[in-house]
Amino acid sequence: MSPAPSRRSEVAPFEVMDVLARVAAMRAEGRDVISLCAGEPSQGAPAAVHAAAARIHTERRPLGYTPALGTAPLRSAIAGHYARWYGLDLDPAQVAVTTGSSGGFVLAFLAAFDHGDRVALARPGYPAYRNILAGLGCEVVDLPTGPAERYQPTVAQLEAAHTQAPLAGLVLASPANPTGTMVDRGELTAIAAWCAAHDVRLVSDEIYHGVTYADPDNPDAKGVCAREVDEHAIVVSSFSKYWGMTGWRLGWLLVPQDLRAAVDALAGNIALCPPAAAQEAAVEAFTQETYAECEAALVDFAKAREVLLARAPELGWGAAAPADGAFYYWADLGDQLAGFTDAREYAAALLEATGVAVTPGADFDPVDGPHCVRLSLAAGPEAIGEALERIIVWQRSRR
Amino acid sequence: MSPAPSRRSEVAPFEVMDVLARVAAMRAEGRDVISLCAGEPSQGAPAAVHAAAARIHTERRPLGYTPALGTAPLRSAIAGHYARWYGLDLDPAQVAVTTGSSGGFVLAFLAAFDHGDRVALARPGYPAYRNILAGLGCEVVDLPTGPAERYQPTVAQLEAAHTQAPLAGLVLASPANPTGTMVDRGELTAIAAWCAAHDVRLVSDEIYHGVTYADPDNPDAKGVCAREVDEHAIVVSSFSKYWGMTGWRLGWLLVPQDLRAAVDALAGNIALCPPAAAQEAAVEAFTQETYAECEAALVDFAKAREVLLARAPELGWGAAAPADGAFYYWADLGDQLAGFTDAREYAAALLEATGVAVTPGADFDPVDGPHCVRLSLAAGPEAIGEALERIIVWQRSRR
Repeated sequence: MSPAPSRRSEVAPFEVMDVLARVAAMRAEGRDVISLCAGEPSQGAPAAVHAAAARIHTERRPLGYTPALGTAPLRSAIAGHYARWYGLDLDPAQVAVTTGSSGGFVLAFLAAFDHGDRVALARPGYPAYRNILAGLGCEVVDLPTGPAERYQPTVAQLEAAHTQAPLAGLVLASPANPTGTMVDRGELTAIAAWCAAHDVRLVSDEIYHGVTYADPDNPDAKGVCAREVDEHAIVVSSFSKYWGMTGWRLGWLLVPQDLRAAVDALAGNIALCPPAAAQEAAVEAFTQETYAECEAALVDFAKAREVLLARAPELGWGAAAPADGAFYYWADLGDQLAGFTDAREYAAALLEATGVAVTPGADFDPVDGPHCVRLSLAAGPEAIGEALERIIVWQRSRR
Repeated sequence: MSPAPSRRSEVAPFEVMDVLARVAAMRAEGRDVISLCAGEPSQGAPAAVHAAAARIHTERRPLGYTPALGTAPLRSAIAGHYARWYGLDLDPAQVAVTTGSSGGFVLAFLAAFDHGDRVALARPGYPAYRNILAGLGCEVVDLPTGPAERYQPTVAQLEAAHTQAPLAGLVLASPANPTGTMVDRGELTAIAAWCAAHDVRLVSDEIYHGVTYADPDNPDAKGVCAREVDEHAIVVSSFSKYWGMTGWRLGWLLVPQDLRAAVDALAGNIALCPPAAAQEAAVEAFTQETYAECEAALVDFAKAREVLLARAPELGWGAAAPADGAFYYWADLGDQLAGFTDAREYAAALLEATGVAVTPGADFDPVDGPHCVRLSLAAGPEAIGEALERIIVWQRSRR
């Protein structure tokens, strides 16, 4: 006899895993592959952050546990970032440093939601929201979005879902993954007001803030922070994207006053503390020089995005999201799906024929995703240009 | 209106937090404090591990996401460790690298247990087991232990608990925190056989393996690995204790074949991946030189333990655990509690009077812990000797 795995671990494996495995195998065979699957920027951490980490390890400093919610200097530095970008005056005690945004989501969902609570999400969306919530026993309520809603949830959808059975929460992402779309100040304010009026906790994923393509003179160009419009919102953010520190596993929450005790009580139990050297080094992420370095890294994403948007009509695909921010392009394959069962099959055939890897959409949207794909801009403008050319030529050859 | 915190975040705050805050305040005032509260060794990471991390950061290597279950070289290196210490021939695919043992526990409990499942724990025990399980909706079943059971659960207790209502799991720790006691091969085999016969998943916390005080000629001196006796056991381990890498947040699971898919499916969702630089550096933890360095660091714990055990009778406390391993001494305060409500009050008075900080026991055992304390050996033999002297003199002065 043997005990069984839990039912809650019955999570669909990501389709992109097969693509990534095939990419690795093809590269091992020496084939020329352009992967547009990346969910991470390629520039790496800022120089000053690496330098601080190098010092710690060169001096062989013992790295003990830090406080569960992070070191005081890092919490202060993060609070200062909110003053700089959003004009928000935060008490550092409202900042909880986490082990990446992943650690932040687990902590936020545990603190805010109980087993059986209904939590709404835009579909398509980042798959881990759905899978973490389900693992924690919450009921995921899909808010199907498309071009009409700019791929973001609306108050009308929330109202309809809440009428069916009360919602406990809403996870909102702006810029979103996989679509890159953003909600503006007016939309966010309306959603936050609706949440406040209905006792619904807003969890705002802002990990792509700063990775945006708006006019920099727009005061909301970096994104609008939910804390600006909702004192009860939980904000989730990270050093992974704007600062290029994916592998460091460092993020943070802005914790509303009423959840402070809950987050305090849970954090040490579920994670002990975030990585210590990364915390110390990340204090260097908020200097004038480092912000400038991060902005410079965005130039390549912006160029890649321009290349993509300029040639997108030639792809002959269907509706696509506007790619306001993040580094993704989400599109329906439209007529180009003809002859394939789904985007997974399309992506596999494309990869074999052209060496271009794209992410099939079902990972982000189990319903409409099977006819969509996500392209990442992180490969840079030249690789994107070459990839588009190969896709266009291959699609034409199939007619 | 405002949404409420979750009920599952109603976790009792740790009593040791007040002690630690007072220690920090007293040190800030320049007072001479000896803290015996540490749950971490003080030597820091091995030299070769620090050197590898320094290289990564000096070269400013971009640290992207690694595979969710860890890099192939680290999984191989950890598998090799099981050949060296236990003679186990493991497929590296059975090793899942985690973000500390904390990340390992969350992953293991999610993969193995569902909401409502009954999971048994020795009491006293590491408080996060109880708090994580409760957060994930499991029912914690206490197995009260004391000197008669050497503070470890027995088959008879499991049988009794299982008869009341079926158990889904057992969390066993050897060496245990806070008691330091170990189960020997015969006891572990009996417990594993009982678990196998009753479809109960054994989760074996082995993070203190190697931090032991047995005769090194004893083939089981490092601890007995549950995988040696139970192919369905989940083993949880970590670089934090034997290798002194607490702040690095790096641990691992040995995942049984039948849970491989469940752990695979969950890991990327809840954590994305463990810290990347730490993973690369930790590959250096398994050389002859590094093992020797770790063994050398244990000498101080062993000396501190001898000092403590030699003078323990003078403390006039009650029953104490035998401190087979880890770096803890767990004791009932016995008659010395007279005049205090509980160990928390005793510890506060002791700290004010003598500058010696000990951990009150309620964090580890809500029932019997309030008359117990935990002392950590990590302060080293001289500090332990001085602390004991102060405690003995202070207790005598109170008569």
